[in-house]
Amino acid sequence: MKPMGPIPAGFKERDGELVIGSKPARALVDEAGRTPLFIYSGDLIERRISELRDAMPKKLEINYAVKANPFAPLITHMRGRVDGFDIASSGELEVVKAAGIDPESVSFAGPGKRETELEAAITFGATLNCESEREAAKSIAIGERLGIKPRIAIRVNPDFELRGSGMKMGGGAKQFGIDSERVVPLARRLIDSGVEWRGFHIYTGSQSLDADAIVETQANVLQLARKLTEEIGAKLPKLNMGGGFGIPYFHGDKPLDVRKIGAALGDEFSRLPSDYDETRFCVELGRYLVGEAGVYVTRIIERKESHGETFLITDGGLHHQLAASGNFGTVVRRNYPLANVEKFGAPVQEVASVVGCLCTPLDRLGDKVELPVCEEGDLFAIFCAGAYGASASPSAFLGQGAAGELLVLGS
Amino acid sequence: MKPMGPIPAGFKERDGELVIGSKPARALVDEAGRTPLFIYSGDLIERRISELRDAMPKKLEINYAVKANPFAPLITHMRGRVDGFDIASSGELEVVKAAGIDPESVSFAGPGKRETELEAAITFGATLNCESEREAAKSIAIGERLGIKPRIAIRVNPDFELRGSGMKMGGGAKQFGIDSERVVPLARRLIDSGVEWRGFHIYTGSQSLDADAIVETQANVLQLARKLTEEIGAKLPKLNMGGGFGIPYFHGDKPLDVRKIGAALGDEFSRLPSDYDETRFCVELGRYLVGEAGVYVTRIIERKESHGETFLITDGGLHHQLAASGNFGTVVRRNYPLANVEKFGAPVQEVASVVGCLCTPLDRLGDKVELPVCEEGDLFAIFCAGAYGASASPSAFLGQGAAGELLVLGS
Repeated sequence: MKPMGPIPAGFKERDGELVIGSKPARALVDEAGRTPLFIYSGDLIERRISELRDAMPKKLEINYAVKANPFAPLITHMRGRVDGFDIASSGELEVVKAAGIDPESVSFAGPGKRETELEAAITFGATLNCESEREAAKSIAIGERLGIKPRIAIRVNPDFELRGSGMKMGGGAKQFGIDSERVVPLARRLIDSGVEWRGFHIYTGSQSLDADAIVETQANVLQLARKLTEEIGAKLPKLNMGGGFGIPYFHGDKPLDVRKIGAALGDEFSRLPSDYDETRFCVELGRYLVGEAGVYVTRIIERKESHGETFLITDGGLHHQLAASGNFGTVVRRNYPLANVEKFGAPVQEVASVVGCLCTPLDRLGDKVELPVCEEGDLFAIFCAGAYGASASPSAFLGQGAAGELLVLGS
Repeated sequence: MKPMGPIPAGFKERDGELVIGSKPARALVDEAGRTPLFIYSGDLIERRISELRDAMPKKLEINYAVKANPFAPLITHMRGRVDGFDIASSGELEVVKAAGIDPESVSFAGPGKRETELEAAITFGATLNCESEREAAKSIAIGERLGIKPRIAIRVNPDFELRGSGMKMGGGAKQFGIDSERVVPLARRLIDSGVEWRGFHIYTGSQSLDADAIVETQANVLQLARKLTEEIGAKLPKLNMGGGFGIPYFHGDKPLDVRKIGAALGDEFSRLPSDYDETRFCVELGRYLVGEAGVYVTRIIERKESHGETFLITDGGLHHQLAASGNFGTVVRRNYPLANVEKFGAPVQEVASVVGCLCTPLDRLGDKVELPVCEEGDLFAIFCAGAYGASASPSAFLGQGAAGELLVLGS
């Protein structure tokens, strides 16, 4: 037997069934008319945002990183609930455009922006988180050609990283941002060139469950931003402090203590000199806002015994949930939380492995997990599927095609 | 500096440029009008098949596993060049249908076949590589309902595996096939029920570069097939011996010695009793036939220095070449072979990392590789991109979308 991660808070059980929003998951699947199906709970997203706002200083803005989940109804749901949207390509720019998002609240980061992408973002009015001197020069030139004043922030590659984060994005040589010692001359050139100066984007890592590490990093980010601002000699309009807020995926993972982070950040803000009274501060969160609000529901096609082990073969798989199969950014495969939708919370009766329908041994969703007895036709839920699921998986693999997606409103 | 894998044989250099078929890669990109672009060489595929036929016993049929690369023009190119097609979903069934492939030469394996998929395959006339007793019962029932005699083989889960293979698909408890001790009664039931009995599918593993291991496994496969056939008491119409033939991806990898495999298999065939004179034997190869014939071409958007290291940021990335980024089925990331398309074979001048355009540190195509100096606008080739590239990567990730694909004919 191998343990699985904790089922996220907020999923309800009614008559032994998993309920999402106000409806049983089975009824939602029947309405959608298909499996596999991603179901996202608008209510759980709202609650997450509201709890986070309670924990954080009022001054702090909360941005949504579209890359975590670009499903159009979810983006629309986010409008008015978060303060800004961070995008990473012109494809994501189209997503926020279609949702009617205010350009002023959109910023665009990415180390390899094409000229066409820069032009589209400048035309729209998004802030470019500029990743290099060359990109800055291109953006200025495009702005002049179009007769538009580009909004430009500098993405800084800091000398420190977010300790213990799932993915480090600062500290040492990186393809992201501009090494901090080269930021000041570039910022001055940008300001002199007449662009709309938007401050800094400092992203140090993601998926951390260690509040102390995030507190330490946020303090470092603020210190670096102040140092750079003083050297530049112009007020700091905005600071995107990055993200890093993780969610529990695996056995033993504990939820992040956001109150601790909020309290420490409040202290930091209270120590800022009055020069920063007008500065806007934000964090950029994707996975933390939506990851736990999503469930991937798949149907058991077959219950199979082989050499004394039980396999539950589903109609889903790594083509929709690559990360849950252990094939995306992880070295050792561990089990995400999962459950039988109609035997939710039922007692453990056996050990089984939950696999996908693909003809590859990589396609494993649950390795030797403890479950009630599951049969052909049963629906199976893999939790923590709200972020980096549908859009971060190879849906065309083995000719399978995309899963369905559904945003459920109401509680 | 970290080493990279060997550039596959058959790619030519002309005036310092990489030539694919008869044209420089740059010209092919210009014709396609886009990067990133997968370019597959029909000529290299043909040569691979022809060399393989030379090495193998005449009796051996060679099947193509569509999952390796389902690009429609490539499937059409394969028609008449290989003896059969192995598919893994109804999506892949549509691909072979569209290419006008003879149903008699198509077989369908996969542990989680839906009823609709079984029905589509039976209607088309493909052979079902049956993965369980339940699937057999469903197939018989569907055949009766449709008034069609289904073609059914049994996929056997053998007690042995392919030593040292990249992915083990036999040996011990598995979601694939039917444990060998349960095969005989099922085969008898199938024959008695009046389906068209098509023999066995025994797949033990993939991506092996060890000819001795493959020789040993093929002998085991033949022995198992004979043992089962004798117990069943009906002639063996066909044996799909699986694949396992690997290609060199990484530094130190040596091409597979197919002559050794062919010689040993010839000996095995010569020892078969006359009961097997009419039996058809095939191997099922995907990666081995097309993997080395494909190149993923991406454009350098920016040459960037950070803390003394050089990054070449391209317009491609893991969203098209997940395996090359080290995020698919590998524990330790190693460098695929790569080269500057217009400085092909040019002397090494510096060490640089080749990264994709995605805003994630996972997006690394070449880690600290030795290269000539590369500049913005240069085209970059990642080799070994013919199999498990375009269709096995999350093309929607970060709103990027699919790469272009091009099959080049002629030499």
